[in-house]
Amino acid sequence: MASFTPRPVPVALIGLGGVGKAVLTQLLSPPLNARFNLILIANSRLSLSLPLPTGAPLTPTNYLPILEQHGNPLDIASVLSLLKDSSEANGGIFIDSTGSELIPSIYPQILGMGINIVTPNKKATSSSNELWQDIKSKIYPNTSTLYYGESTVGAGLPILSTLKDLIETGDEIEKIEGVFSGTLSYIFNEFSTSQGSNVKFSDVVKVAKDNGYTEPDPRDDLSGTDVARKLTILSRLIPTSPILEEGYASVPTESLVPDILSNASTKEEYLERLAEGDDYFNKLRSDALKENKVIRYVGVIDLKNNKVECKLGKYPTDHAFATALKGSDNIISFTTKRYSARPLIIQGSGAGADVTAMGVTSDLIKIHERLTTRA
Amino acid sequence: MASFTPRPVPVALIGLGGVGKAVLTQLLSPPLNARFNLILIANSRLSLSLPLPTGAPLTPTNYLPILEQHGNPLDIASVLSLLKDSSEANGGIFIDSTGSELIPSIYPQILGMGINIVTPNKKATSSSNELWQDIKSKIYPNTSTLYYGESTVGAGLPILSTLKDLIETGDEIEKIEGVFSGTLSYIFNEFSTSQGSNVKFSDVVKVAKDNGYTEPDPRDDLSGTDVARKLTILSRLIPTSPILEEGYASVPTESLVPDILSNASTKEEYLERLAEGDDYFNKLRSDALKENKVIRYVGVIDLKNNKVECKLGKYPTDHAFATALKGSDNIISFTTKRYSARPLIIQGSGAGADVTAMGVTSDLIKIHERLTTRA
Repeated sequence: MASFTPRPVPVALIGLGGVGKAVLTQLLSPPLNARFNLILIANSRLSLSLPLPTGAPLTPTNYLPILEQHGNPLDIASVLSLLKDSSEANGGIFIDSTGSELIPSIYPQILGMGINIVTPNKKATSSSNELWQDIKSKIYPNTSTLYYGESTVGAGLPILSTLKDLIETGDEIEKIEGVFSGTLSYIFNEFSTSQGSNVKFSDVVKVAKDNGYTEPDPRDDLSGTDVARKLTILSRLIPTSPILEEGYASVPTESLVPDILSNASTKEEYLERLAEGDDYFNKLRSDALKENKVIRYVGVIDLKNNKVECKLGKYPTDHAFATALKGSDNIISFTTKRYSARPLIIQGSGAGADVTAMGVTSDLIKIHERLTTRA
Repeated sequence: MASFTPRPVPVALIGLGGVGKAVLTQLLSPPLNARFNLILIANSRLSLSLPLPTGAPLTPTNYLPILEQHGNPLDIASVLSLLKDSSEANGGIFIDSTGSELIPSIYPQILGMGINIVTPNKKATSSSNELWQDIKSKIYPNTSTLYYGESTVGAGLPILSTLKDLIETGDEIEKIEGVFSGTLSYIFNEFSTSQGSNVKFSDVVKVAKDNGYTEPDPRDDLSGTDVARKLTILSRLIPTSPILEEGYASVPTESLVPDILSNASTKEEYLERLAEGDDYFNKLRSDALKENKVIRYVGVIDLKNNKVECKLGKYPTDHAFATALKGSDNIISFTTKRYSARPLIIQGSGAGADVTAMGVTSDLIKIHERLTTRA
């Protein structure tokens, strides 16, 4: 048999925040640097074509000054045609590591050019059903173009790939239930424990904020919107799941911003007045403990009852969501026809640049494998 | 863009025991029946080419009488040439759903013909290092031929694929630790609980045997060999792991057949005399409980200490292996550079025909995707 070496696949990386930088670091290191040919990096303002004219290697430490000095204003259309030109048929990959709403809106156009997409950006697949249907029509198995977004749910944890395996092998999903937010996992793992705890809800939120576990405005986590986006992404992979016409906005979502605080006009006022909600959360916790349960903020897709929702739930202390869930871990359980007596459970860190970047690069590898299997 | 339909890939299925039959059922059902072209089935004696000359469809209920009536004596060489003839370049898949030692010994030859292999048979990759190296040299990325064995560890759980993702994206594995045997999971989950338990070890084993959770001779489970095979398979995917020259036989494995019973000559004598070991296990259990721990039979790959071993371990009652592990579930934890504070954990049923077949068919789908991505 002739010697075989899988060819490198051209890649453009847009977005150089925490996750984008970690993706860049992984792409520049062996063994990945042999599998991909990085032809462009860009932040929100500037783009830089590679290799550098000087022939100097790009590194995780030198890219920023070089981008600032030699970059051109970012123009997505040019990025796409560069990618298209560098690729054999169906060969290039566009990585959208931005938090932009704008770039996802042109995914159908990018995919329509035969350019594959990998993204940790939740916006594309958790917004309107119209955009989602448009994307679906442009990707495998409807075309030979590929779209992967593993890291949009659970970061590096194999959540979407497991759901895909279950469905494509003919299993029937009955329920998906999980703690999808690292921030809310931390808050409730501290606040509501099997042995009982006296800590105040407002104090836990403040510690979480001070340690950088929350968004700058903690209401962005406590609103449940991030969880609703993740549920939307999962739900859309299940053929029998309710159609969420407006995406995450169609998911009934219990907000943890207490009603009495909904009129706080700034995050400072909100944080100051957070203790006003302590009695409410104390009662929830003590009521649960009387039943030997803890409270957790969960996302639930319940196909038997045709419901998708984000809410506070109560779980027995020997449940996987209770004692064994620690820190800011995500935990997701799949109850299916095959996994009916006990669910299939995946648990681990669900946030952070390195593990999110791992979700992105494992998607890149899957595309690389699919494009290079044939000699 | 031209309309695109991924072509069906030819498949031959050898082995029609519990798992093979479940694979057949999944392959004959939508959506999988559109992705694969089943050209042959065989048990240990007879093979049947498809489609049937009568044009009648094969079904999960009619295949056995048809095979008995119209089958020809099984001849692996003919199966391989049929598969080769039915395939485009690199297109066919050989499924070895037997428990044979013989068929795995010719995997290198099959792969050398450019025929892809999917198998739940642990023998190929848990035996000698020589056979393993021979297989590795014949598959991607060294050639364009594919080999998948996801179901050899954890049945349908995504264990091997997760390990592959971690390694290929550049993470460093520090430790893999898990309860890999459904039988031993059940036995210790019953025997050693967080609250304490008075049940006798010999009684738990008997209940497990009576319920069909053990091999016909329970010593096959209690010897730890099955766990050692799974550890070998995992260990060989980790570049820095110790070379296990003799495969599972090179893994130090604590046997649960107590020394005093090692001279039992039949399984009947063994089962009769099993209570002689109860004091030994009682003491292990009560010693652990004094430290607020439970005992579990685990497989451990410890890269920091360069050790691969199967043994009884003690775990705190709030550990994921303790309270949250139930029934006959497998649980596997990956501690890595990225997942260092808390491990990535996967849990769920790790045995049974349907979930093992799911591991097989999800591998088939991955190969199908890799062979059909390009238009």
